[in-house]
Amino acid sequence: MLFNLRDYFFGTDTLINTHYGLTNRVYLNNAATPLVSKPVIQELYKILPIYSYGIESNALSEELALKYNQVRDIVMNFIGADSSLDTVIYTSNTTTAINLLSQAYYESDPNQIILTTKMEHMANYLPFREKMKTVLVNLTSEGNVDMNDYTAKLEEYSGKIKLVAVTGASNITGIIPPFYDMAKMAHNHGAKILVDAVQLVQHKAFSMKPHDDASHIDFVTFDGHKFYTGQSGGVLVGDKAFLNQYKPLLYGGSITEFVSSSQIIYKPSPGRYEPGYPDFLGIISLGTSIRFIQELGIKNIEEWEQGLYLYLIRRLSQIPNLILYGDVYSNPRTPFVSFNLRGLSYRTLAQWLGYSYGIDIASGLNGANIYVQDLLGLTDEQAFSLYKSGEGCGITRASIGLFNSYTDIDRLVDALFSISSQLR
Amino acid sequence: MLFNLRDYFFGTDTLINTHYGLTNRVYLNNAATPLVSKPVIQELYKILPIYSYGIESNALSEELALKYNQVRDIVMNFIGADSSLDTVIYTSNTTTAINLLSQAYYESDPNQIILTTKMEHMANYLPFREKMKTVLVNLTSEGNVDMNDYTAKLEEYSGKIKLVAVTGASNITGIIPPFYDMAKMAHNHGAKILVDAVQLVQHKAFSMKPHDDASHIDFVTFDGHKFYTGQSGGVLVGDKAFLNQYKPLLYGGSITEFVSSSQIIYKPSPGRYEPGYPDFLGIISLGTSIRFIQELGIKNIEEWEQGLYLYLIRRLSQIPNLILYGDVYSNPRTPFVSFNLRGLSYRTLAQWLGYSYGIDIASGLNGANIYVQDLLGLTDEQAFSLYKSGEGCGITRASIGLFNSYTDIDRLVDALFSISSQLR
Repeated sequence: MLFNLRDYFFGTDTLINTHYGLTNRVYLNNAATPLVSKPVIQELYKILPIYSYGIESNALSEELALKYNQVRDIVMNFIGADSSLDTVIYTSNTTTAINLLSQAYYESDPNQIILTTKMEHMANYLPFREKMKTVLVNLTSEGNVDMNDYTAKLEEYSGKIKLVAVTGASNITGIIPPFYDMAKMAHNHGAKILVDAVQLVQHKAFSMKPHDDASHIDFVTFDGHKFYTGQSGGVLVGDKAFLNQYKPLLYGGSITEFVSSSQIIYKPSPGRYEPGYPDFLGIISLGTSIRFIQELGIKNIEEWEQGLYLYLIRRLSQIPNLILYGDVYSNPRTPFVSFNLRGLSYRTLAQWLGYSYGIDIASGLNGANIYVQDLLGLTDEQAFSLYKSGEGCGITRASIGLFNSYTDIDRLVDALFSISSQLR
Repeated sequence: MLFNLRDYFFGTDTLINTHYGLTNRVYLNNAATPLVSKPVIQELYKILPIYSYGIESNALSEELALKYNQVRDIVMNFIGADSSLDTVIYTSNTTTAINLLSQAYYESDPNQIILTTKMEHMANYLPFREKMKTVLVNLTSEGNVDMNDYTAKLEEYSGKIKLVAVTGASNITGIIPPFYDMAKMAHNHGAKILVDAVQLVQHKAFSMKPHDDASHIDFVTFDGHKFYTGQSGGVLVGDKAFLNQYKPLLYGGSITEFVSSSQIIYKPSPGRYEPGYPDFLGIISLGTSIRFIQELGIKNIEEWEQGLYLYLIRRLSQIPNLILYGDVYSNPRTPFVSFNLRGLSYRTLAQWLGYSYGIDIASGLNGANIYVQDLLGLTDEQAFSLYKSGEGCGITRASIGLFNSYTDIDRLVDALFSISSQLR
């Protein structure tokens, strides 16, 4: 299976200024935000002439509303949600989606415990930690969720844990935790599970599984900017009955059935969680992008990306002084790898790759502060003293998207060889 | 002063199916969302090749970050903010901006009183009402803020009111409340003031005024989709010292200086209020749109729109059985008018205008539930019983944007004449 998808994306080969002159940018920062696909922007151009508020009584407004609301079905179909039991709530992004869910859980019982893991991006940790008691599952030495610790904590807090929140794939190592097993065990303890799928669904086929399946996923979130739209617009999908019960986090227009100075009646879900202006262009773009990915075939994409990833890992392993984090052969996974060069700070390495070689990669903690500190073998105190000193800590990350090519991988690896050789 | 700006916008004359066949759409729903300007989309096309995560160490990422962060200066300059004392927080939209501010006020003192008015859109009411005691200022018979009642309530709750929240312009009648006078009086009672300027700044020159001016505006919000971008991306601008003190409403990546499992240190403002993915395209579009409006000249725009508005009002006054709401000659104002036809429900009127004449106008409560119910002369009980019966209540609203023409006005008025004549 071979793709030539570079032409379907904006900016795959943009000329970039480097210390060695102009070259073509190599974009390997897809876990931060991938490049924007042309089908998305072409569809935008078709929508702009009928753009309007989308809820008024006229033919163009109706047409826009239809396209906007159809995305709920596109999303349900894409992740195997159940239209009779699940709701699709449009949000600005995954961060907002998780904040909304954390508020609903807080409303349901402020004294419950949320179980999450040390792998998480802060978006799947801070919204819970700042509201309720939050317990973190430890990691294995490979950088995956430690299922023994998970089992122990589920049992220790059984009955008090109402929600397990876990990433669908680490944004740092690409490692996919065993979330179906985790779901099954959570359900046995009366808890539901949220899978933060923002790093997963564009790389690998995913299903929530039927509600009567023991390993059913109760809540899922992902968003458009991580899905080749470049725009705001994401979703929280899940248990409609649960989400119909609680007050929202964000208040504004159109969330109510009725308001007077003496009374408020909220709409059922999704309406009560969608205050203010509907993000017509962002949400329609997400729908367009999902359909584009479905046409290419998510399994074809996975095969292509995994081929690139394995080639990358094989070549990286030959570079002197390169440290790889987590089990890079862990499977299933998404095509991300984090590394450092011994003797060089993560910041200097990133600057070198960017300013000298025109390679766009991520560096730092990338929002997964606790995970990265753990992978680096730092205690809380050590991490804090590195922060206080201004030195900080972090990794350098290369993350593959479907438009990447073997040439991109070679450019990164050759640059790393060259940097490594200059260190000796 | 005459504009011919139709060609600068998408969809000003899109063909629309009506009961009488195909015609050109007339777009008079700018207070809901105006059409999208072509300069915004042209700039987007220039940005897409350098699109990236915008915080990495390479030339293209730096260029994108610069364009993104420059919008803070564009916004400050546009509304006369003070870069040493004010902060510009990027938000998804005005609704989110007000929710963030309401949370900061709640964090500062959950027992304070928020003073707001019966003119407000629910976005400037529910976020306060659902968190703290909220008092509503009554209206005059003209549909403006009753300054006697405002004075009385400021005095009654003096010392307990920390924030006055008022619209910059009603989304229903376009009436601009005397917010500078309100600011002065609020300051005398130790309160700050928020002006929700989402319906104001694209129509009329506005300034926060200097911090040492008695009528200084402490907080302002507006957003891109109301400013011809069609996209997510707005701002909350105001008192940096205040906004540096409190925990945010939305938690996620990049809001912290440091996180470990035992400690969190938040960034100062704006960082602590900007979790997750920066909305590069939405915010850069807002900046592009502000510059486009500044090039045209906001005073020129105001003159053109007010000319259209007065022509509309003159012609509307001649239509039999047409009821206009609020003082339509109130000045200053934005170019919006709300009306009904006696003997016809607001819904039927909107459907008639839309499906038969291809005119895109708004109908219903338009998010200003309490204001509209008040303009219609309904008590809370009457409004509730209309809601329960399924009949509901509302107005029909025409709202002008800078691309509208005298022909658009004629199309609306001719349609209303025709509908009115068919009622007799």
